[in-house]
Amino acid sequence: MPDSPTPTQQELAVSTLGPCEIPTPLAEAKGGHGRFIEDDTRVMYDVVFHEGHDPKPAIGFERAGPREKIHFQPAKSKAAIVTCGGLCPGLNNVVRNLFYMHRRHYGTAEVLGIRNGYQGLNPAEGQEPITLTDSLVSSIHHQGGTLLGTSRGPQDPRVTVDFLQSQGVNILHTIGGDGTQRGAHAIAQEVARRGADIAVVGVPKTIDNDIRHCYQTFGFMSAVAEAERVIDRAHVEAISVPRGVGLVKLMGRHAGFLAASATIASGEVNFTIIPEAPLVLDGQDGLLARLGRRLDASDHAVVVVAEGAGQELLRAEKGDHAPRVDASGNELLSDIGLYLRKRIKQHFADIGNPVELKYIDPSYYVRSVHANAYDSLMTEKFARHAVHAAMAGKTDLFIGIWQGHMVHVPLSASCGQERRLSTGRDMWSAVLTITGQERW
Amino acid sequence: MPDSPTPTQQELAVSTLGPCEIPTPLAEAKGGHGRFIEDDTRVMYDVVFHEGHDPKPAIGFERAGPREKIHFQPAKSKAAIVTCGGLCPGLNNVVRNLFYMHRRHYGTAEVLGIRNGYQGLNPAEGQEPITLTDSLVSSIHHQGGTLLGTSRGPQDPRVTVDFLQSQGVNILHTIGGDGTQRGAHAIAQEVARRGADIAVVGVPKTIDNDIRHCYQTFGFMSAVAEAERVIDRAHVEAISVPRGVGLVKLMGRHAGFLAASATIASGEVNFTIIPEAPLVLDGQDGLLARLGRRLDASDHAVVVVAEGAGQELLRAEKGDHAPRVDASGNELLSDIGLYLRKRIKQHFADIGNPVELKYIDPSYYVRSVHANAYDSLMTEKFARHAVHAAMAGKTDLFIGIWQGHMVHVPLSASCGQERRLSTGRDMWSAVLTITGQERW
Amino acid sequence: MPDSPTPTQQELAVSTLGPCEIPTPLAEAKGGHGRFIEDDTRVMYDVVFHEGHDPKPAIGFERAGPREKIHFQPAKSKAAIVTCGGLCPGLNNVVRNLFYMHRRHYGTAEVLGIRNGYQGLNPAEGQEPITLTDSLVSSIHHQGGTLLGTSRGPQDPRVTVDFLQSQGVNILHTIGGDGTQRGAHAIAQEVARRGADIAVVGVPKTIDNDIRHCYQTFGFMSAVAEAERVIDRAHVEAISVPRGVGLVKLMGRHAGFLAASATIASGEVNFTIIPEAPLVLDGQDGLLARLGRRLDASDHAVVVVAEGAGQELLRAEKGDHAPRVDASGNELLSDIGLYLRKRIKQHFADIGNPVELKYIDPSYYVRSVHANAYDSLMTEKFARHAVHAAMAGKTDLFIGIWQGHMVHVPLSASCGQERRLSTGRDMWSAVLTITGQERW
Amino acid sequence: MPDSPTPTQQELAVSTLGPCEIPTPLAEAKGGHGRFIEDDTRVMYDVVFHEGHDPKPAIGFERAGPREKIHFQPAKSKAAIVTCGGLCPGLNNVVRNLFYMHRRHYGTAEVLGIRNGYQGLNPAEGQEPITLTDSLVSSIHHQGGTLLGTSRGPQDPRVTVDFLQSQGVNILHTIGGDGTQRGAHAIAQEVARRGADIAVVGVPKTIDNDIRHCYQTFGFMSAVAEAERVIDRAHVEAISVPRGVGLVKLMGRHAGFLAASATIASGEVNFTIIPEAPLVLDGQDGLLARLGRRLDASDHAVVVVAEGAGQELLRAEKGDHAPRVDASGNELLSDIGLYLRKRIKQHFADIGNPVELKYIDPSYYVRSVHANAYDSLMTEKFARHAVHAAMAGKTDLFIGIWQGHMVHVPLSASCGQERRLSTGRDMWSAVLTITGQERW
Repeated sequence: MPDSPTPTQQELAVSTLGPCEIPTPLAEAKGGHGRFIEDDTRVMYDVVFHEGHDPKPAIGFERAGPREKIHFQPAKSKAAIVTCGGLCPGLNNVVRNLFYMHRRHYGTAEVLGIRNGYQGLNPAEGQEPITLTDSLVSSIHHQGGTLLGTSRGPQDPRVTVDFLQSQGVNILHTIGGDGTQRGAHAIAQEVARRGADIAVVGVPKTIDNDIRHCYQTFGFMSAVAEAERVIDRAHVEAISVPRGVGLVKLMGRHAGFLAASATIASGEVNFTIIPEAPLVLDGQDGLLARLGRRLDASDHAVVVVAEGAGQELLRAEKGDHAPRVDASGNELLSDIGLYLRKRIKQHFADIGNPVELKYIDPSYYVRSVHANAYDSLMTEKFARHAVHAAMAGKTDLFIGIWQGHMVHVPLSASCGQERRLSTGRDMWSAVLTITGQERW
Repeated sequence: MPDSPTPTQQELAVSTLGPCEIPTPLAEAKGGHGRFIEDDTRVMYDVVFHEGHDPKPAIGFERAGPREKIHFQPAKSKAAIVTCGGLCPGLNNVVRNLFYMHRRHYGTAEVLGIRNGYQGLNPAEGQEPITLTDSLVSSIHHQGGTLLGTSRGPQDPRVTVDFLQSQGVNILHTIGGDGTQRGAHAIAQEVARRGADIAVVGVPKTIDNDIRHCYQTFGFMSAVAEAERVIDRAHVEAISVPRGVGLVKLMGRHAGFLAASATIASGEVNFTIIPEAPLVLDGQDGLLARLGRRLDASDHAVVVVAEGAGQELLRAEKGDHAPRVDASGNELLSDIGLYLRKRIKQHFADIGNPVELKYIDPSYYVRSVHANAYDSLMTEKFARHAVHAAMAGKTDLFIGIWQGHMVHVPLSASCGQERRLSTGRDMWSAVLTITGQERW
Repeated sequence: MPDSPTPTQQELAVSTLGPCEIPTPLAEAKGGHGRFIEDDTRVMYDVVFHEGHDPKPAIGFERAGPREKIHFQPAKSKAAIVTCGGLCPGLNNVVRNLFYMHRRHYGTAEVLGIRNGYQGLNPAEGQEPITLTDSLVSSIHHQGGTLLGTSRGPQDPRVTVDFLQSQGVNILHTIGGDGTQRGAHAIAQEVARRGADIAVVGVPKTIDNDIRHCYQTFGFMSAVAEAERVIDRAHVEAISVPRGVGLVKLMGRHAGFLAASATIASGEVNFTIIPEAPLVLDGQDGLLARLGRRLDASDHAVVVVAEGAGQELLRAEKGDHAPRVDASGNELLSDIGLYLRKRIKQHFADIGNPVELKYIDPSYYVRSVHANAYDSLMTEKFARHAVHAAMAGKTDLFIGIWQGHMVHVPLSASCGQERRLSTGRDMWSAVLTITGQERW
Repeated sequence: MPDSPTPTQQELAVSTLGPCEIPTPLAEAKGGHGRFIEDDTRVMYDVVFHEGHDPKPAIGFERAGPREKIHFQPAKSKAAIVTCGGLCPGLNNVVRNLFYMHRRHYGTAEVLGIRNGYQGLNPAEGQEPITLTDSLVSSIHHQGGTLLGTSRGPQDPRVTVDFLQSQGVNILHTIGGDGTQRGAHAIAQEVARRGADIAVVGVPKTIDNDIRHCYQTFGFMSAVAEAERVIDRAHVEAISVPRGVGLVKLMGRHAGFLAASATIASGEVNFTIIPEAPLVLDGQDGLLARLGRRLDASDHAVVVVAEGAGQELLRAEKGDHAPRVDASGNELLSDIGLYLRKRIKQHFADIGNPVELKYIDPSYYVRSVHANAYDSLMTEKFARHAVHAAMAGKTDLFIGIWQGHMVHVPLSASCGQERRLSTGRDMWSAVLTITGQERW
């Protein structure tokens, strides 16, 4: 599913802290169950080719998995876990799985939980880490949110590395999105500058499914399931009254993956509006006219809009020439849901054929649920491979999924390049097929 | 649970269309399973007394249930069902249960489904009724909403009765809230004026649980369950960040039953704000100061507000002296959820100790779910007894639950007297206990 | 819903430990929110009467609720909670609500959790009680089971009272079914014999809903909801194949409430078999012939059987003249589900028209779920009133619901008299109506 | 995830019915949204390589997707859909998506639903196909099972092709598992023998996830989610009593994917027993001794067993030298769940330290649920690409997922080679890690 140019093999090279000379303590080593992954194993970047043509040059990600020899002495190691940014289903599962993998399987001496995101890596914030124990983590995967707490924003990497060194931490797991992994990259660079022996291994997290080089992360599917449920309710409202319109706003500041996936899962949506496709309201091909034709034909309609869609319309409305930003430079979104509600009601009132519009904005509801079975499985894979990578002294990377295989993605190859839903690809075709929104 | 003066026995007397001389065709009659209810059986209105004192004079509702002799010849009867007003979990169950009770058990010749509320009883609206069949209704109880469609507002009762007579309908089941039952009362009065032989038997429906003389209706508990789920998500958001506040707005224009019940069910709410209790924001005992003390003590808080709460504050803010109303005279509510969001964020920013507030307004989400098991059981009881009542020629009533028994409630004894949550009673005590909102 | 003769007022009299002279510390007392219940308030036992006839003599249960003056000094009190017998949804909610009610609202000095049922009240078992804390109980209501552990069987009441006295416990809350409350009664009697100042106040618990004088308890409705889900799956299996039969076995050793309620809630069952109604398999009116007629007409059928049904058939099969019992005298049930599966398959194979039977025995699945919203509300009521009763020095009782009101039920008026589903009453009529099982 | 030798490119070649000269009517073609897939596009079979070594020779599956020119004239085409074998979540979604894809997007003239599996393709069975319509299929995806009905077993392919030709069907979609696809292959071969113009395009279905060349199919994840729920209940039972053991039997006749995945998703299992790994009960390293050590350490344990596990033990017990088979040659499984229940209880009773064992066998419960969001997305992909393939005249194939891409899998390359869970691979490592079952 690459949406951007193939990187070079050099760009996919993974940093390591040093030699791996310690035999792994994994039970698999003894029972012969696990299969160790040799360090030069790669997963091809591009796998689609034309028959009769030579395959692409062999560029690929380093394959994740247990190494037979590792870098860190587990009994002398201390790992730390930090969760950052907005909530995502499965955070607690990742923490729990990282903990058990370290303690039970590698025998890591101690696992710290950092409080409230990167804030907890800055002693000035006064939030002491906690030593994770079996009784603290054993049931957390049944709950949404994060036991450790979270917050937004980075800290000075020098302060962070000072803190890690003062605590004797030699493995740091950073669970978060693009911003978090940028922060992790800065920490890894500061570690490298000092020549310190600290591995920084991330687990990507994004409710919007917009992280480059990770086709899917944990939590997304749980959010889709909740969003589907909301859409189904809007559909029930719409079909129960004459000229019923159900309007649902979903998360997705820049990427429409959640809106698109929930649309397909639901099978009840007639119009899906995402940030990647321009929103046209007026004119014969605009949403309002199309919606009118749909209502005339079927008497009800469901509209789903991602929160980041249609911002150019809202700016035009306000006379802004550029997005407004907050102090940190993040774009301030105007509320497209309320705007559409107003415009749709107004339009059909104006033409003398009013609609009965029911608006649902579930906001955080879709992300604070606990992980469903699928995402539980995802978190286990990410956490297990993150620990394998860290114990082998790999650093400055996160765990990704590529062509169905778990891989090591150098942070420098992903950060700052968020994925977008390509309207020329399969998922958008599916949305257009399911909704029929081009047909009206 | 009477919240108002005991009515007289006269006020609780039920209207009947005429003699009951036809032996019931119920299978129970043959097998001897069912126990027939004698027509003079009553359920006491007041059941609480002081030991040693004589009990209250024997005032009571007519007890619902199958009569041994009935008024209508089933094979010559045609029933019609209409669902009105906002959606409520279980509407489809009521329709399905009414259908099966009529067709399978009494052998009623035909059951019509009226389209889109009272509109469908006015031929000028052009919405023909549909003849219900087994295949139309067999699976509808697994879906929210109403198969028949719904709408708000009454029709001229003369037009309605003309229509019923033209269709040969002799039993009309009106499923809806206070407004619907007022409309049903008008229809029953028009029927009586004409001396027509048409029974009007309602099933009360209210997501707000605010119908007088019906301690609980179907659908309410399903909505509470959905609201609890939303509150739990807000709680997850609140506990996952420093100084986290989860704010949830719930339905409840005039009555706080839903907000109160969801609060108790969830066990995670710290402040519950309902229309029946004045909202004070400022001052040492105001919500903002209490919320501050709660946050200082526990670092997170969950606030639930019913949509009809705090309207006097919002009016004061706007300089209105009285509620604004729409064309039909219904009060236009200002959005207390958005107002609280703004005021809470502002207050804590102003005092230099900002909060991380997450707002969820599930709106229609809580009511468009299908009925849960409890409400399925409720709908079955209401529907079964509505058919028993109608076949016995009872009219101008709805089915209620009183002291745990199914009863006939004359429409005139309930309509126009919506229930409110009494802040001097058990439920509000439970809310204050669970939230501890008086303690801060 | 009385299924047995009306008791005398004497039989409903509640025991008390002594005078109530301490002003309640409840916040309601100050804010004036709560309404105190005067001690001579009663809830009528029989509320159904015939118009024109004098009401029944005023016999009633003592009404539960907060008393203005209480018996125990909270700051010097120590409460203990024990959960006994099989799991039931909501046990953790009861524990949590009892804890908060004692600690936050009355200010009880300490609340102990007894481990593993009555075993934990016998020091010889070596299971020390735990002191409950906010962090131990704050999230337990989201989980099924019981934090405290449970077990079956009684202990010597003298040992128990010795233990309570040695621990300084003056309030004991016993959460359990008929056997547990019999045990509680024995403890209360031993307390009385010693003239000790220990209140024994129970909360009834039964997945079978079979406790006399408590129309409904917590947990039952959650189990019904799970059972409904299982039935719906069996229905899906049945309708997806030619001549499909879904057969579901549900809990219910002696009472068919769960099977009956799940049948009504589901609306998809064709035959419901309960212990209270004899099971006839053979002959023109037997289940096998009826099932055949149903399949010929509709090509699928769903059969629900309670585990305690048909035992007389199974005994006849084995040539037993009386039930076999285990060491404690409990009847050993034969597996009616497997028996029916065999007989049904055999019968239709024998007549050359085989069926496709799918059998589901969810066993404990329906009872280990966490409480749903309805049961959460129930547990809160039971727990709150149990603490009110205990603080007022009431003893040898459990909290019941009667005619919709919370009441004090003397243990002697309930124990040893389990409820059965009366086949002459409303619920069984509903089952016969919904299933139509008499029609085939 | 190839578990077997790489096939040759020849083995992966897809059969076609003839030239593709008709411009696709897809709306995407006009709007330019969709990207057409050129017919020589392949997805590499092996994507793992060692850096520095030449990649594998370019062998790959034909990539699925819309072709710019198609083989069939939609307005003259008639498609038929058949669902076969055991239920699987998502069958109705596949039917619905196939229907909409054909009717709305390609404009296929008619879509037939074949009744009750391959039986419905044999006129002698007397089950006429139904013409699918919008109102028949619009809501079926909210229900488990299959609207069309299903059955097991093949029919004579000559009879089938006669029937298809007599009905004018030129596209047949076969939804089913390995047996079904073997039947489809026989039909396609008979079509080829006759030179008929009928495309046979399957959608693989297996609750056991055991179809070769399809890494994952629809429905499996919904079943895992239900199985996880059951395991969590068994865990609740186990932790609520002293020495509690929860024992759960899950589907999986030959493959342990469901048991393994549910184990990982749940995170609460201590021992997982699958058909692919031998079951040893006795001895120091046997399950009974390990379970004893686990109980001594933690006082509770959860055991999950796939129904096909341990059959060799059961045969030894019975003195059988080979599996018993039914008339069709399918192995008759003995009930390993009941056997383990007996053996575990007996063992711990014998050593004087009995356990409290709670057994749950959800059987069909896990497969008759409707598809969850993840599986809804899966079904949409499979159905969409099946229609694309059929319209382009591809035949004798099913739609698979390979390295994350949708591909055409020739039936001959998959049938008769069911997948097994490799105990040397990642999933089994995860199970051993999560359960720790090697540690005790």
